Amino acid sequence: MNVLIVYAHEEPHSFNAALKNTAIRHFEKLGHKVVVSDLYRMKFKAVADGEDFLERRNKYVLTRQHEEAKAHELGTLSHDILVEQKKVQECDLLILQFPLWWFSMPAILKGWVDRVMTLGFAYGDDKWYDRGGLQGRRAMLSITTGGPEHYYRERGINGELEQILYPIHHGILFFCGFTVLPPFVAWSPAHIDKPTRHHLMEAYEKRLSEIEEEEPLSFHPLSHYGEDLRLRQEFTP
Amino acid sequence: MNVLIVYAHEEPHSFNAALKNTAIRHFEKLGHKVVVSDLYRMKFKAVADGEDFLERRNKYVLTRQHEEAKAHELGTLSHDILVEQKKVQECDLLILQFPLWWFSMPAILKGWVDRVMTLGFAYGDDKWYDRGGLQGRRAMLSITTGGPEHYYRERGINGELEQILYPIHHGILFFCGFTVLPPFVAWSPAHIDKPTRHHLMEAYEKRLSEIEEEEPLSFHPLSHYGEDLRLRQEFTP
Repeated sequence: MNVLIVYAHEEPHSFNAALKNTAIRHFEKLGHKVVVSDLYRMKFKAVADGEDFLERRNKYVLTRQHEEAKAHELGTLSHDILVEQKKVQECDLLILQFPLWWFSMPAILKGWVDRVMTLGFAYGDDKWYDRGGLQGRRAMLSITTGGPEHYYRERGINGELEQILYPIHHGILFFCGFTVLPPFVAWSPAHIDKPTRHHLMEAYEKRLSEIEEEEPLSFHPLSHYGEDLRLRQEFTP
Repeated sequence: MNVLIVYAHEEPHSFNAALKNTAIRHFEKLGHKVVVSDLYRMKFKAVADGEDFLERRNKYVLTRQHEEAKAHELGTLSHDILVEQKKVQECDLLILQFPLWWFSMPAILKGWVDRVMTLGFAYGDDKWYDRGGLQGRRAMLSITTGGPEHYYRERGINGELEQILYPIHHGILFFCGFTVLPPFVAWSPAHIDKPTRHHLMEAYEKRLSEIEEEEPLSFHPLSHYGEDLRLRQEFTP
């Protein structure tokens, strides 16, 4: 199995770094191939702009999706995007490893999504959701939180984690065709003691060891929607 | 009234630019003061990292929130962050103007949130949600979408817009203490004709003209939560 870990934390002593390293060790021990995009170390360009296109279809007005489609066709996306797309193309499992900042991804990782998941590559024409460009691959979020677990559960002050992650799970990963696995969540590692952190790391290794058989999250496939792209009446949203 | 528009689109001919310009004209005509953070034009640094702190409390291990708290106390946040914080501090109304990319903000705007909304400034100690550091100010998202409206309504393929924007409305704006207004949404401006675009722009002006009296979105204040920060039984989530 080819594993791609996209990792978005600057600090090598962070819990995020430790989770990333645990995953690398675990998969390599089993003989899997692991590729890591360490976005901070790579100084990955976070901002999607006109420089992402080596040739412009329209030099005067930038319409991003038009330029993406054209650049995909001609192979004129900027080199750093092509490199990441190749890694995604070749992976069987994608892990996004990041601290939950403002209930979402750090900007550097959002920029990776904005720039790498181009029209023509990840989606386009009829390729979206379960027919997305990256179907056949699994994806999982591995995140750390600031607050403890009950802040993110039913009636918790921060709202339910499932709801918070919905735009990423459904809107990014499933949209592109990934089979989305339940997230691994390290609750509030900055505020727990060493033994608890150790248990968390063991729990992560256990998750990873079962990942090939794991039941994915369930989202409605395109066939559940009518021609107007509304969910048919016989299904529950 | 002081209005701050944080604007995240590169293209001056875009519909986002037109919405931004409409808002500037509208408020200035009424004698309000408008400040614009044009993030692309400013080449705003999107990536939160160690360079955000002129002095480091801990030079060896970067723990972002610790550094933010210390830097806030000492005034040693990087200059570009302090400038943005002053704009936020002085505004009565914050408008975030952006295209919905991957069901969230473009990375450059997420980076603005990651870097500007620091511990000590926007939240911290008991300052969060309705007691957040920025209380007394209103905030509104003004966004454009790729898909048409019914994709984002009940049973729509992309999920309900309210759910998609929840992490931003509740997790960023309300978390920092803002009174959150309903979003203004320009549905799929790339795929509509000129008269419809014109109507959209008129609808935006109308919204803006009523903004000081507008009913905000309703979120539970801290007083609805118990000591364990779970919503009390007498309230509906």
